[in-house]
Amino acid sequence: MLSTMQDDQLSLADLLRHGSTLHSESEVVTWTSSGPRRATYGQVGKRAAQLANALRGLGVTGDQRVGTFMWNNAEHLEAYLAIPAMGAVLHTLNIRLFPEQLVFVANHAEDHVVIVDGTLVPLFAKQLPQLKTVQHVIVANGDPASLEAPEGVQVHAYDELLAAQPETFDWPVVDERSAAAMCYTSGTTGDPKGVVYSHRSIWLHSMQVCMSDSMRLDQSDKALVIVPMFHAMSWGMPYAAFMVGASMIMPDRFLQPEPIAQILAAERPTFAGAVPTIWQGLLQHLDANPQDISHLREVVVGGSAAPPAMMHAFEERYGVPILHAWGMTETSPLGSVARPPASATGEEAWQYRYTQGRFPASVRARLIDDDGNEVPWDGESVGELEVRGPWIAGGYYGDADPAKFHDGWLRTGDVGKITPNGYLTLTDRAKDVIKSGGEWISSVDLENTVMSHPAVAEAAVIGVPDEKWDERPLVAVVLREGEQVSADELRTFLQDKVAKWQLPEHWTFVEEVPKTSVGKFDKKRLRAAHAEGKLDVAHF
Amino acid sequence: MLSTMQDDQLSLADLLRHGSTLHSESEVVTWTSSGPRRATYGQVGKRAAQLANALRGLGVTGDQRVGTFMWNNAEHLEAYLAIPAMGAVLHTLNIRLFPEQLVFVANHAEDHVVIVDGTLVPLFAKQLPQLKTVQHVIVANGDPASLEAPEGVQVHAYDELLAAQPETFDWPVVDERSAAAMCYTSGTTGDPKGVVYSHRSIWLHSMQVCMSDSMRLDQSDKALVIVPMFHAMSWGMPYAAFMVGASMIMPDRFLQPEPIAQILAAERPTFAGAVPTIWQGLLQHLDANPQDISHLREVVVGGSAAPPAMMHAFEERYGVPILHAWGMTETSPLGSVARPPASATGEEAWQYRYTQGRFPASVRARLIDDDGNEVPWDGESVGELEVRGPWIAGGYYGDADPAKFHDGWLRTGDVGKITPNGYLTLTDRAKDVIKSGGEWISSVDLENTVMSHPAVAEAAVIGVPDEKWDERPLVAVVLREGEQVSADELRTFLQDKVAKWQLPEHWTFVEEVPKTSVGKFDKKRLRAAHAEGKLDVAHF
Repeated sequence: MLSTMQDDQLSLADLLRHGSTLHSESEVVTWTSSGPRRATYGQVGKRAAQLANALRGLGVTGDQRVGTFMWNNAEHLEAYLAIPAMGAVLHTLNIRLFPEQLVFVANHAEDHVVIVDGTLVPLFAKQLPQLKTVQHVIVANGDPASLEAPEGVQVHAYDELLAAQPETFDWPVVDERSAAAMCYTSGTTGDPKGVVYSHRSIWLHSMQVCMSDSMRLDQSDKALVIVPMFHAMSWGMPYAAFMVGASMIMPDRFLQPEPIAQILAAERPTFAGAVPTIWQGLLQHLDANPQDISHLREVVVGGSAAPPAMMHAFEERYGVPILHAWGMTETSPLGSVARPPASATGEEAWQYRYTQGRFPASVRARLIDDDGNEVPWDGESVGELEVRGPWIAGGYYGDADPAKFHDGWLRTGDVGKITPNGYLTLTDRAKDVIKSGGEWISSVDLENTVMSHPAVAEAAVIGVPDEKWDERPLVAVVLREGEQVSADELRTFLQDKVAKWQLPEHWTFVEEVPKTSVGKFDKKRLRAAHAEGKLDVAHF
Repeated sequence: MLSTMQDDQLSLADLLRHGSTLHSESEVVTWTSSGPRRATYGQVGKRAAQLANALRGLGVTGDQRVGTFMWNNAEHLEAYLAIPAMGAVLHTLNIRLFPEQLVFVANHAEDHVVIVDGTLVPLFAKQLPQLKTVQHVIVANGDPASLEAPEGVQVHAYDELLAAQPETFDWPVVDERSAAAMCYTSGTTGDPKGVVYSHRSIWLHSMQVCMSDSMRLDQSDKALVIVPMFHAMSWGMPYAAFMVGASMIMPDRFLQPEPIAQILAAERPTFAGAVPTIWQGLLQHLDANPQDISHLREVVVGGSAAPPAMMHAFEERYGVPILHAWGMTETSPLGSVARPPASATGEEAWQYRYTQGRFPASVRARLIDDDGNEVPWDGESVGELEVRGPWIAGGYYGDADPAKFHDGWLRTGDVGKITPNGYLTLTDRAKDVIKSGGEWISSVDLENTVMSHPAVAEAAVIGVPDEKWDERPLVAVVLREGEQVSADELRTFLQDKVAKWQLPEHWTFVEEVPKTSVGKFDKKRLRAAHAEGKLDVAHF
């Protein structure tokens, strides 16, 4: 028996139409070196139509890819809306990729046109000759003459290109499961992999972001969009905000604590989202330069675990609650949000807020052990997190990567535990967890415990082969400048802090821990150094 | 280019699983003659599995229909969840239908089983012999022996039937566009028409109800679900609440102001929804029996226009904001919600709040004139409202009814105007609007103006044929007891209140205005009475 509901497609053309008409007076504010510049959603709608006409004029047809190499600004928002709405595919190029990765992803996606911010032209120009499919580069907020184009590539000025175009576009009807946008993940192994979002997944995810159990965005909000639009679609904030008419404040390239503080003072946003590093930097700045930021009703923190001390500092010193959330590029990215149950108060509520959060109804989760079996949600049993749902990836562009999927579920590569009422706590990355005698030791927990010693600046823990136990932990320690402590002393320090069977017997002191391009511990290189005998290890 | 998102189906089995596990401690509270009885969502989940097993045991297979003839209570919630989740179709039978309509809809839907509340057995028993496809009746909260069953119909006790069943069920995977639930609309013309909701439409609608621009339901809410679950799916509240773990308070048959006031005092809900009549009655009761109801963060009012005086009374005397909303059975029902723009304050905000509200992104709207052309959203131009979207009907069960659909859009039968920023004000029903010399006169506006005369109890306005103007208004007036006023005096009273060309020239005084089964003016009968010359009309 069929339903009698309309066979309606969820489509970003409708999102564009809705936001630019019913919320035509909402604003996107872009920060510049001379303060804010403002555009209404009505204007954004017209400019998006002009952009779509311009791209059609440059030969963009069907589901061709259009890349963006841009900061967060009004032009990037126009690209976010126009490209999928015209049936093409938005490809957000991460400006922080290693050069060879950038070349790989632009060629892999076969980008036909790339829109580049003027300030990023020098960075982009170096790789442009290697981008085989790019025929047009559009320079926004800058001088196109600053870009020396290789043979066969035309360069255009964004504003001039748009000015000649009509302010309406005949947006096509698309199947909701067709591609709308893509974003490559930069893992530590192999080539980057393309996650391709659909009109449907973006629509549903936007609704979720605005639900009361998630970010609660609505038309009364002014959202400071700090998460780069080239990183996991800026956590879906641009689309969600446009869906409900929440105004947006775009910091462009001004992501340092001082300009962020200026933007806060000038625009008084009600909401913001960013990784812990940004908030930590802002906190230090605010402590030195006090400023009222209580206009922020809430800020969401994700990307990596929010330190509890930082959460308390913002709430207790500045009256701003921090909402912890978990997700990844493959999950659009909203995976879980740490709103405590209404019944929890005081310290119990804080314990819930420290977790990675609870899953919304559209995200299903399970924990899987080494044997492929589900482990219970008892708040103690540990397994690899797998997720399912309408905005969760089931493959990569041109690459099914069977190691990342399990019976249709996404293997997140994160290891953790879940309480009976669905709160997730991550304890490690699956590839970093140390499997010792059938038990799993969290490398992250060990690192945090070692780093709580006052002489330790950094500590990275990897598993090393062990005949009896399969693997045992090796700790690589970076000492604080001028501090001295021996491996023996550190072992003693750990004795009453970790279970006896987890106590590491392998220790090494290093100048620094190798890092990935996004600043995380690069344990692959640490393991290689150990395998090659380059580490000077003390054994107990 | 296909997206790489999982091909995931939105399914009420997942909603049931999610709510009963992650929110297992949330509660459904059912009011009884001896106070509240409570069940957790964890218990509801087990009972839903038992119900599904029981229905399977009674031969329910595939997408067979299972009817409910019930008040709002925990058992009805179990039916709401179990029946669609098992792949069958929930058919909510409106206990207030005329007997012949009830017989028609149960036969038309081919209900296989009907679950009936004990207190409704006498009402149901009369029609049961005419229900041709019903093979089993399950009596909830009552004595099955009270129902004398016709030959071939088996009667069961709900609790006994469930007690024998396992507490788990192997919920099937269904296509999200397949039927989940159905509800017949009781128009004033022709047979009732079946609206069939899909898993997809209910899922999306539930998300919308929880969005910040709509009802904002979340796990911290306790929702008093007054709108009958047999009427437009109780405005989608049961599914939305279960999706996010909001607790529910079900008033069962206790819908009079006094028990509602008792429930408010005992359970302190944070949210509630009902038609204006309920709130008007409660207001009178509260004014005579003061009680704190500020635990209600908001109440939503729809079904018919909320009187501004009532909205002010609740907000100013009781600290409870009333949220006006519009919808109909064919729109799931959320169509528009009257949250004012953030920029509007004071009187301007109130003007927005009096409207039927603004459309969310998933509901597209247009106004169509007599010639089938769109009229502009200028806040003045009037047309028939047509809507599109993923939870809007595109037909009826077994009846496409082309008069109700227009190029895939639902013709709502409502006439109104829309502001440039998308706020809808309804002025009339399309069939009641008076088309005079190419202009439309709102019968509702005229009625309200006549009813503002102190001697008038009720006034209904219909269009009557006119050679020169096509149609002109005729006013049927019911005087207040003991009051006297002439048609001439009423015309004079209207002179400075309506445009000159709208001033009615046909007047009649009647004992009462004929009403439909749901208490609305039955203008069809009034028109028939006029056509048959049964009204004593004064002409000017």
